[in-house]
Amino acid sequence: MAQQINLKPFINPQSVALIGVSSRTGPGAFNVMEQMLGIGYKGKIYPVNPRGGTILNIPAYKSVLEIEAPVDLAVIATPRTVVPGVVRQCVAKSIPAVVVITQGFSDAEDEDGPRLHQEILDAIEGTQTRVVGPNTLGVVNTFINFNTSFITYDTNPAPVGVICQSGIFLAGSADFSGGLGIGIDTGNTADIGFTECMEYLAGHPQIKVINIHMEGVRDGRRFLECARQITPHKPVLVLKTGSSEEGARAASSHSGSMAGEDAVFSAAFAQSGVIRIDSADHMADLNRTLATYREMRGKRVGVITISGGAGIIAVDAAGKHAMEIASFSPDTMSALNSVFPDWMHPGNPADIWPAGMSRGYREVTAGALDKILSDDAVDAVLCITPAYLDPDTDPLNIIGLINDVAARHPQKPTAMWIFGPHKVKYADRFAEAGLVVAYGSPDNAMYCLAQLYHYHSAVKGADFSVYLPPVNIDHGLVSSTLESSLNAGLPTLNEEALDIIEAYGIPVVRRSLVKNPEEAAHQAEMLGYPVVMKIASPDVPHKSDLEGIKLNINSKDDAVRAYNEIMDNVMTRIPHARINGILLQSQVSDGTEVILGGRRDPQFGPVLVYGLGGIFTELMRDVSFRVAPIARHEALEMIRETRSYKILSGARGREPGDIEGLADCLIRLGALLHDHPEIAEVDINPLLVTAKGCLAVDALIVL
Amino acid sequence: MAQQINLKPFINPQSVALIGVSSRTGPGAFNVMEQMLGIGYKGKIYPVNPRGGTILNIPAYKSVLEIEAPVDLAVIATPRTVVPGVVRQCVAKSIPAVVVITQGFSDAEDEDGPRLHQEILDAIEGTQTRVVGPNTLGVVNTFINFNTSFITYDTNPAPVGVICQSGIFLAGSADFSGGLGIGIDTGNTADIGFTECMEYLAGHPQIKVINIHMEGVRDGRRFLECARQITPHKPVLVLKTGSSEEGARAASSHSGSMAGEDAVFSAAFAQSGVIRIDSADHMADLNRTLATYREMRGKRVGVITISGGAGIIAVDAAGKHAMEIASFSPDTMSALNSVFPDWMHPGNPADIWPAGMSRGYREVTAGALDKILSDDAVDAVLCITPAYLDPDTDPLNIIGLINDVAARHPQKPTAMWIFGPHKVKYADRFAEAGLVVAYGSPDNAMYCLAQLYHYHSAVKGADFSVYLPPVNIDHGLVSSTLESSLNAGLPTLNEEALDIIEAYGIPVVRRSLVKNPEEAAHQAEMLGYPVVMKIASPDVPHKSDLEGIKLNINSKDDAVRAYNEIMDNVMTRIPHARINGILLQSQVSDGTEVILGGRRDPQFGPVLVYGLGGIFTELMRDVSFRVAPIARHEALEMIRETRSYKILSGARGREPGDIEGLADCLIRLGALLHDHPEIAEVDINPLLVTAKGCLAVDALIVL
Repeated sequence: MAQQINLKPFINPQSVALIGVSSRTGPGAFNVMEQMLGIGYKGKIYPVNPRGGTILNIPAYKSVLEIEAPVDLAVIATPRTVVPGVVRQCVAKSIPAVVVITQGFSDAEDEDGPRLHQEILDAIEGTQTRVVGPNTLGVVNTFINFNTSFITYDTNPAPVGVICQSGIFLAGSADFSGGLGIGIDTGNTADIGFTECMEYLAGHPQIKVINIHMEGVRDGRRFLECARQITPHKPVLVLKTGSSEEGARAASSHSGSMAGEDAVFSAAFAQSGVIRIDSADHMADLNRTLATYREMRGKRVGVITISGGAGIIAVDAAGKHAMEIASFSPDTMSALNSVFPDWMHPGNPADIWPAGMSRGYREVTAGALDKILSDDAVDAVLCITPAYLDPDTDPLNIIGLINDVAARHPQKPTAMWIFGPHKVKYADRFAEAGLVVAYGSPDNAMYCLAQLYHYHSAVKGADFSVYLPPVNIDHGLVSSTLESSLNAGLPTLNEEALDIIEAYGIPVVRRSLVKNPEEAAHQAEMLGYPVVMKIASPDVPHKSDLEGIKLNINSKDDAVRAYNEIMDNVMTRIPHARINGILLQSQVSDGTEVILGGRRDPQFGPVLVYGLGGIFTELMRDVSFRVAPIARHEALEMIRETRSYKILSGARGREPGDIEGLADCLIRLGALLHDHPEIAEVDINPLLVTAKGCLAVDALIVL
Repeated sequence: MAQQINLKPFINPQSVALIGVSSRTGPGAFNVMEQMLGIGYKGKIYPVNPRGGTILNIPAYKSVLEIEAPVDLAVIATPRTVVPGVVRQCVAKSIPAVVVITQGFSDAEDEDGPRLHQEILDAIEGTQTRVVGPNTLGVVNTFINFNTSFITYDTNPAPVGVICQSGIFLAGSADFSGGLGIGIDTGNTADIGFTECMEYLAGHPQIKVINIHMEGVRDGRRFLECARQITPHKPVLVLKTGSSEEGARAASSHSGSMAGEDAVFSAAFAQSGVIRIDSADHMADLNRTLATYREMRGKRVGVITISGGAGIIAVDAAGKHAMEIASFSPDTMSALNSVFPDWMHPGNPADIWPAGMSRGYREVTAGALDKILSDDAVDAVLCITPAYLDPDTDPLNIIGLINDVAARHPQKPTAMWIFGPHKVKYADRFAEAGLVVAYGSPDNAMYCLAQLYHYHSAVKGADFSVYLPPVNIDHGLVSSTLESSLNAGLPTLNEEALDIIEAYGIPVVRRSLVKNPEEAAHQAEMLGYPVVMKIASPDVPHKSDLEGIKLNINSKDDAVRAYNEIMDNVMTRIPHARINGILLQSQVSDGTEVILGGRRDPQFGPVLVYGLGGIFTELMRDVSFRVAPIARHEALEMIRETRSYKILSGARGREPGDIEGLADCLIRLGALLHDHPEIAEVDINPLLVTAKGCLAVDALIVL
């Protein structure tokens, strides 16, 4: 986190120059100055317009250079062609922060856009001036009633930070993030990007949750490295848009081709503790959840309901989000039993309606909630309540009652599912007290509790920098092999790929490169039968197409015959092929075939791919990804999260494969990619996994 | 649809007796009579209370028998022990309709509950009196301001029918179904159930969409047969609750064990045109969608947005729900181009903000919407608009503008995604005009458009009764084989199972049952080598465990040896086994192994199961289900909807399997299950599929 940028002049400016502000005001004029004055910004505002005159009774400067006092922030909304010149004036005036609202730069589809974009970057190069935008609504800070947009939108103050690439997440923050404290629309992200903004919000005491709307990321690796420092202390939520199939088709090579960018994003976020939001529909409630509840220690949810049917819906929702329905302790059961009618046994969900009807709804609700929250077998409670009465005049004062009980159990979330005509008002009243979140559906409630548990169990306080470089690597052999391939202009390594991964500690099948039939016969004896023989040539990429491979060699004679046949086949078809010899390998058939791959993602750098061989990887797309290098627990997760894991782990009476050894191979392959940026792509296909260990049979490296 | 019950006295009663109504009134008293008078029910109300007196100034009858005038409907809310007696009084008074609100019958966990339940059924047996409930909120009819509940809840009148097993769907209808016309809570469903209610709502002219909340169904098959008559004319939505893993564990046998009840429900609903709702969160918007839009001819959606970022979110949502983003025609593109700024090429999504800013937001919105709706390459439009201004005072009158354009294109849905502080009011105003649905999120919008398209393309006007019994079946052989097995007390058929499925026209491997070594040698020659030999005995269920199978028989001598060894093995291990002989089969290894199974579902009767053999069925649970019998298109869908379909269809250079032949096998197996209710379970495992055809190798039938 070197070179941290001071975003304070953007977020909390004492003075703002509005460059290009119009003199037109009133509804429909979208006048930024009118908006700023309207919401009560207390800093100094300097309108700048080449025509001068007065705007809302304040005299306009013809140029930002005419302003005598220092200016913290310039907001530029001029036609795009003059923007670079205006930015140069801001630099001359030593303005540290510039927001460019204007559209039509790298977002434009003509030639001028990219040129003007570059001119802005040139103008600030090497200066103290930094730019947010262009093509942005700029910055919102509800703590000081500040908003650079030309629209007055609902900014419901909340302990929520938003970094976005589309103004809709500021303009619609009530809908998306459930309110807003500080928001930055990075727009085209010409200069200031996610990482700088995330670092700023991480240190801001009033922000409890950071939200990022991401369409793409420029330096994904830097983003991840920053995120993994922040997430253990403050939750970071990412809504990645543009994730539909259309966007994922670009990828090309081999196992990497199935990456699709989206799966890599998911893996990268998970590895750094970033919570990926699957739908904007969940975003507001998840923000409220993370900002409201202090912790959640387990997955066991107690459900209190006034309707048996609603209780079942809540159980379904719990199942959908992998939460558990708690088994109440005997003590809780007997307490419930003492108020339930004779014909009804208590359980979870606890349907308190009949008890409430006979013994008082308030008393039964409060008693059940307190008892269940006190139960050691319960980690959170969802309480289902209708909102038929206006909460402000409700004689039962359900909100006060629930808040009182919840306040006595701060270590366990008390969540509400509220339905009925006053549900929004109920949710608002609960939000004001800040102890309980009232959800609009059990699905949202269970999703949010599941994410809350995930954050507290797997992210908060975690150390995401646990990669340990593997030992016992023959770095000299790897470097010299790679170097000689590069020098020879041979970007694709095959036989040498096996040497390299072996040098990295991955077990490789026994083999020998031979140059004549006699050597072939001798080495076949040494390796032990059966053996496989393959042409070793950089000019024969598809060996089997050219009959450059022979299987089932079972004798010296076989070996001699095979040597001559392979050589004949290759020489006839590619007369000028450079031939290194013929590779003999032990012919191994034991074990389950898996594929280990690696490639360079344009955004996140080295990425590992793992999957079971054959149809599983190619047809079923049953593969997992991680940004390399990886720690042991990440390697094990990669293996276990594939659907086909059951096959490796000993299902149907098979012998379980050596999962720990396989994890070691993944860690070592990740290290290879990490240590050697000159490797563009690597594939081990297949690696055979048995109970006794792993064995790489074929490999390919592309430089 | 014989024996249709007249539900009119429940839904539209002229007179109601309220039995057990309390004299306590006011807030918190939950007095049903006060509620009924409060909402303006115009029929006659007779309070009945054994203590007499007056209730809300109306004298109470001590018994329903004291009422002199005829009574259409009795609503019973007495203690449960007196309910059966009160029902008998209602029968004596010839009241056609009784709602039992009281809880504690089959929902109770004591001995009295089920007994009292039976007493109610006994009381109405053979009479004209029918019962809704017990354990119900009863009936709601907002068209006549009628509601039998003790709670006054928000019933926003809508062309929506609701049949439910939990009162929450009436009480929370605004949240769940987006309003309510007629609602029936069948509660414990002691007498009147889904099917009767669905038939009634199907014929009701004011109901456009039927919603069913189902926890379980008594006679699933009758329900389906009724539903498939209704869905082509009126959409039926089902929210099935209790679908979590816990509920699915009951199933037991073999391939049927993977059914889980839930997958069978999904298949059964789809086969009868019932739309299964995946989450209550979608229910309200889907009701509005189906009630508002007249048709939807394709999947191609045009998107108009005021924010590029929001447009991308809409594209993601379209991809999630398998909708397509339309490619606008050149004519539409040039119309958009003429208003867009020079630096911006139009596309879909059409980001109209810059054009709107320079040329007027109203004009550009109306022009773009009209042009895109007129485009033959577009089937529906989603228009993304903020709701910052109160719609009642909005100078731009966006609602009027959108409604005007939408009215000119009634054959294509105009959908809105509205965000911002006034979004609920916007949605309400759009709903009042009834031309456009305003959704709260693009995910909801695209989900609903996808379901609308599904309804209009696959359900509306469809004929779901297209099963054609297969021909060329040797019914005589099947019946006699089944009969002799039953008579012999042998409920498990193995060799005979192959005969039976062969008689049903399913190709079976060539085979021969032999009784001595000489016959074995002769038949092995006749079948052609290699052959497989297996013990044929009802007492040897697991043949391979007992070494009762020999593979790779390649000569007469092999056959003789194998005969003797198998007999020795079996006789040694199970000395008293009844032995029919030894079965010789051609040893076939060509083709892809699939499994065809059938079982009886307790709710839906015969159910077919299909999956690829080996790991796919057992480990990956990649199976499909249908209620039998099935039509050809259903058989093809069963095959195509498995993930492993790619393997059968010729992926990776394989020869494609005979899918039509496989479909024929499924149809014939379904016919067998349908024709022979004495078959509890059938499995063909494996059936081998090659390009040339299918061949059953082993089969099992359990009676």
